[in-house]
Amino acid sequence: MSETRERNEPAAELAGAAEAYDREDELAAKRAEFVLDDGTVYLDGNSLGALPRSVPDRVADVVAREWGRLRIRSWSESGWWQAPERIGDRIAPLVGAAPGQIVVGDSTSVNVLKAVVGALRVVRAGSGADDRRRDGGEVLVDAGTFPTDGYIAESAARMTGARVRAVPADEMADAVGPNTAVALVNHVDYRTGELRDVAEVTEALHRTGGRVVWDVCHSAGALPVELDATGADFAVGCTYKYLNGGPGSPAFLYVRRELQHRFDSPLPGWNSHSEPFAMSADYVPAEGAPRGRVGTPDILSMLALEEALRVWDGVGIGAVRAKSLALSDFFLRCVRQYVPGAGGADGPVRSATPEEHARRGSQIALHCPDAADVTRELLDRGVVIDHRPPDTLRFGFTPLYTSFADVERAARTLGDVLRARRP
Amino acid sequence: MSETRERNEPAAELAGAAEAYDREDELAAKRAEFVLDDGTVYLDGNSLGALPRSVPDRVADVVAREWGRLRIRSWSESGWWQAPERIGDRIAPLVGAAPGQIVVGDSTSVNVLKAVVGALRVVRAGSGADDRRRDGGEVLVDAGTFPTDGYIAESAARMTGARVRAVPADEMADAVGPNTAVALVNHVDYRTGELRDVAEVTEALHRTGGRVVWDVCHSAGALPVELDATGADFAVGCTYKYLNGGPGSPAFLYVRRELQHRFDSPLPGWNSHSEPFAMSADYVPAEGAPRGRVGTPDILSMLALEEALRVWDGVGIGAVRAKSLALSDFFLRCVRQYVPGAGGADGPVRSATPEEHARRGSQIALHCPDAADVTRELLDRGVVIDHRPPDTLRFGFTPLYTSFADVERAARTLGDVLRARRP
Repeated sequence: MSETRERNEPAAELAGAAEAYDREDELAAKRAEFVLDDGTVYLDGNSLGALPRSVPDRVADVVAREWGRLRIRSWSESGWWQAPERIGDRIAPLVGAAPGQIVVGDSTSVNVLKAVVGALRVVRAGSGADDRRRDGGEVLVDAGTFPTDGYIAESAARMTGARVRAVPADEMADAVGPNTAVALVNHVDYRTGELRDVAEVTEALHRTGGRVVWDVCHSAGALPVELDATGADFAVGCTYKYLNGGPGSPAFLYVRRELQHRFDSPLPGWNSHSEPFAMSADYVPAEGAPRGRVGTPDILSMLALEEALRVWDGVGIGAVRAKSLALSDFFLRCVRQYVPGAGGADGPVRSATPEEHARRGSQIALHCPDAADVTRELLDRGVVIDHRPPDTLRFGFTPLYTSFADVERAARTLGDVLRARRP
Repeated sequence: MSETRERNEPAAELAGAAEAYDREDELAAKRAEFVLDDGTVYLDGNSLGALPRSVPDRVADVVAREWGRLRIRSWSESGWWQAPERIGDRIAPLVGAAPGQIVVGDSTSVNVLKAVVGALRVVRAGSGADDRRRDGGEVLVDAGTFPTDGYIAESAARMTGARVRAVPADEMADAVGPNTAVALVNHVDYRTGELRDVAEVTEALHRTGGRVVWDVCHSAGALPVELDATGADFAVGCTYKYLNGGPGSPAFLYVRRELQHRFDSPLPGWNSHSEPFAMSADYVPAEGAPRGRVGTPDILSMLALEEALRVWDGVGIGAVRAKSLALSDFFLRCVRQYVPGAGGADGPVRSATPEEHARRGSQIALHCPDAADVTRELLDRGVVIDHRPPDTLRFGFTPLYTSFADVERAARTLGDVLRARRP
């Protein structure tokens, strides 16, 4: 009885607060544009975004009419050929980019290779014969980076005669030196959800003649990304997380306008040729964003993404950021109430995500010794999150469809699971 | 009147022959498994295959249920994670490969980079310090190759310290020398439809310690490809032509089993890690076919392809080859009847495709001075082919759905168009 009372008091208060927040939420109507079910709280949109309601009909039309009826004619008549740049321009305002600098296609990993090799070559082609030209220079990577970035950076360095040095993300600006050609930095740490000061690293590189590659996989669509304003040189991003493009939807590559004519891609496929249908034996790269293309784009995945991006019509990224922070603040408040001892040295969970707004992305990561089991038990109770080894629970908040009621239920269910495990 | 009579005589005879061939065609029933319309003759399946009838429902289920309802759970519960190898094994029998050697994903161009760099590294890691180890060796490419192969081979060579030499395809076996590390050869020439003796080039390379990369884009699904039997080292192929996977469906990479543990990919993305979900900072490549993976696979395009491959159930590639040759033989016979002067030095069209069956793929290429206009006028009359600059008309025959009546109508319409242009 006493346990029930203890739990019910905060539950009633927090459920009421959630209801009030949802009522006042200016993005609340967006939730109806997604396929969600009331029995489930989906907090894994930072891994795979939910399905926007208009996508199934659009995909059906692409398959049945554009492919099935028009067939080859769709490359021109249905606008397939221009899709990579057209969709890039649709993403551009969400990441602070003017049109003409983003092209969609390939996976994030493939785009990391293009960007890191591209950035290295821009530095080498620059004036002056400094160390970066003589010995290839170094590529700094965030020591806690999403693994693929590190693996691909290593391959890029190996094939261009550079070397990789891993440094903790918060020391990266200080680590930039005269030999640093390129730094590959994550805007938001995929594990902890920490938001990095990428502008600071960018400035440090530009002072010494280096170039930056931003990885905005965990920030695009979740918070303001200011590629143009902060002087980003290259950026890569994912579209199946906060941009809801669908499983494995194509990634994107940003090349700053001033660098486009110097972008020397390691993947000069026929789609990036200035006259792709001339079928010329000599490679002449296209100008502008299309230079980042490679082979034939995967049209079904790409056009599903294009349709998914319609949910952003009329949405300002500022409102998204405000709601994201409100959601994660409220989540932390609920966790403190529902999980006895949360945050304490011996407590069952401890947040790995900074309290300060300026250092927080759109997820909360909780350290939890039995994270794998807890993730499974949450799933059994209808709360979908994910687990990153060894001991991290990731709760992702997608402002377009996550409600405050979702957040309250997730924290409450976490409390229930933890209490059941350690009665 | 006399022109009409001259045209009607062969027309009646050839239409009758087409009808008889279609009646006897053991693959005729397959045509009903595709979305086709009677008003159109579609001979561009060598560019984009027609839509198999079962694909729309499958794609709708992937979108609405697997993505929409199960969301992140589908990576395990709907078998998304294993799709690249599972679909690779489905393609394997069509290209003469035992299971476990093919992985699906990325574009053909990206796979050419993996294969050429991979083959170069296998040669260099081999015993003996010959010239190919000291100076990087040479990569032979077919001088008439589909452009992207040449562009990407150039990039692969540049990033690994090798050099590219372009040689005519029919001189490639003779061109192999002690410095040749790798040859990248097209099984079927995309322009002329000529079938190459890839086995001969493979043997020449193996005698001198080199490795071969086959490009089977224009043969996979159209004729027997014997990767295992002929000792192919690496191969890349396309799935949206004769395999009907849909626009931009992912390509595939074959790495011969004996070489898999020596395959050192230039794109070591997290999907190719031995323990991808351990999120380790150190790259340890997976064993087997998964080593050819890179980033997150584009699930919508990939599962559409998987469904499309069901049309191959119960089909032997021998029957496909027999029908393909019968179709192209019949087409040439019809062209000779319907196009006065065809084949002559001053005639309106001249075949660029070899007469001998052993040197013919599954398309007929006709030289035609005003090819672009003729292609457009054929389209206006419901015959879809494509034009490759400067002066080639490509007629592609997809044995699973092209009928002899299609072929007769295409040749007859070509005759009509040419006569109308030069009365």
